[in-house]
Amino acid sequence: MATGKRAPAGAAVLRGDITKAIRDAVMTELAEVGYGRLSIEAVARRAGVGKTAIYRRWSNKLEMVLEIVSDVAGRSVPLPDTGSFAGDLQLLLMIVGKALQHRIASQIIPDLMAEASRNPQIAETLQKALRTHQQAVGDKLIGQAVARGELPAGTDPDLAVDLLLGPLYWRLAVARTPLPDDYLDKMIVAVTAALKAAN
Amino acid sequence: MATGKRAPAGAAVLRGDITKAIRDAVMTELAEVGYGRLSIEAVARRAGVGKTAIYRRWSNKLEMVLEIVSDVAGRSVPLPDTGSFAGDLQLLLMIVGKALQHRIASQIIPDLMAEASRNPQIAETLQKALRTHQQAVGDKLIGQAVARGELPAGTDPDLAVDLLLGPLYWRLAVARTPLPDDYLDKMIVAVTAALKAAN
Repeated sequence: MATGKRAPAGAAVLRGDITKAIRDAVMTELAEVGYGRLSIEAVARRAGVGKTAIYRRWSNKLEMVLEIVSDVAGRSVPLPDTGSFAGDLQLLLMIVGKALQHRIASQIIPDLMAEASRNPQIAETLQKALRTHQQAVGDKLIGQAVARGELPAGTDPDLAVDLLLGPLYWRLAVARTPLPDDYLDKMIVAVTAALKAAN
Repeated sequence: MATGKRAPAGAAVLRGDITKAIRDAVMTELAEVGYGRLSIEAVARRAGVGKTAIYRRWSNKLEMVLEIVSDVAGRSVPLPDTGSFAGDLQLLLMIVGKALQHRIASQIIPDLMAEASRNPQIAETLQKALRTHQQAVGDKLIGQAVARGELPAGTDPDLAVDLLLGPLYWRLAVARTPLPDDYLDKMIVAVTAALKAAN
């Protein structure tokens, strides 16, 4: 695991492998023990690297966790144009429903949100990642529907994403109530009517 | 602070005072350090009581935190009948908006949700409190609107609460984006149209 001087050709690959091992270890530790109890020692042990490999990349625990989580959380959702607003909504709700069952949404984000209320730097970084992400999804989704003539120009993309994401987040990540069979179909009808009315 | 044998007349009052001091200390410690780092010692110190006063009431940290938080979270929202669905929604959104800025929603619930994913007992207790609460609010809100003839019979109270609570929870407690001035008015129009369409 040493990034020694004797392996110049493979060094970049090896550095990438080590970074990936550390990232995976951080995500697993965050899910298992939470930010408060996460230690650099435990991350190094799990990743099979020395602590120096970590300190070479990040100067402290906060910086390490923020960079890794905001990178994972901010990865863009693939949002292909299905040809209709109803189709786009169905796809988005499925993607979001699946994402909310991932440990990032169910464990790591709530944990960091709790830390965020005690640490403005965590708050700002997470909020920026979430907002950038939400805006990109909203602009694409509503832009397509307006271009197709399915929604009036001026429909609020932020309200649209709030109405889609909020109920699912509340159900799946907070109250953890199973979705009834017809829930997503009802949501599509409900949100479409809501956006037309609120314009 | 001693609940000694020499004060039988005031003992019940004193016990209540001590319990209240412990409850307040638990809520403050939860907000400041989170569940993971909360210690019985720190709660006792903050409440100005001995550790035995705590162990007389709860057998461990988990039991103590669950009872106190689910009691506070489950307190019923006062939901008077304003005479119209729009009025009821406006009142409810104001109450929810205010509640979401309370540390229970912004710090303690996210923290416990993160713990819940590692501890089924926390998960079950919290979910039960949230669901019972949500159902009570939904049944009252939608029941009133149906009785007034403002919504069709069979309107889904759970969907209604999800559509109201979800977006505000997402905005205020997760993404922490300020609400635009016309946000609540738009939400009232949007949710009313959504519920009529999804029925």
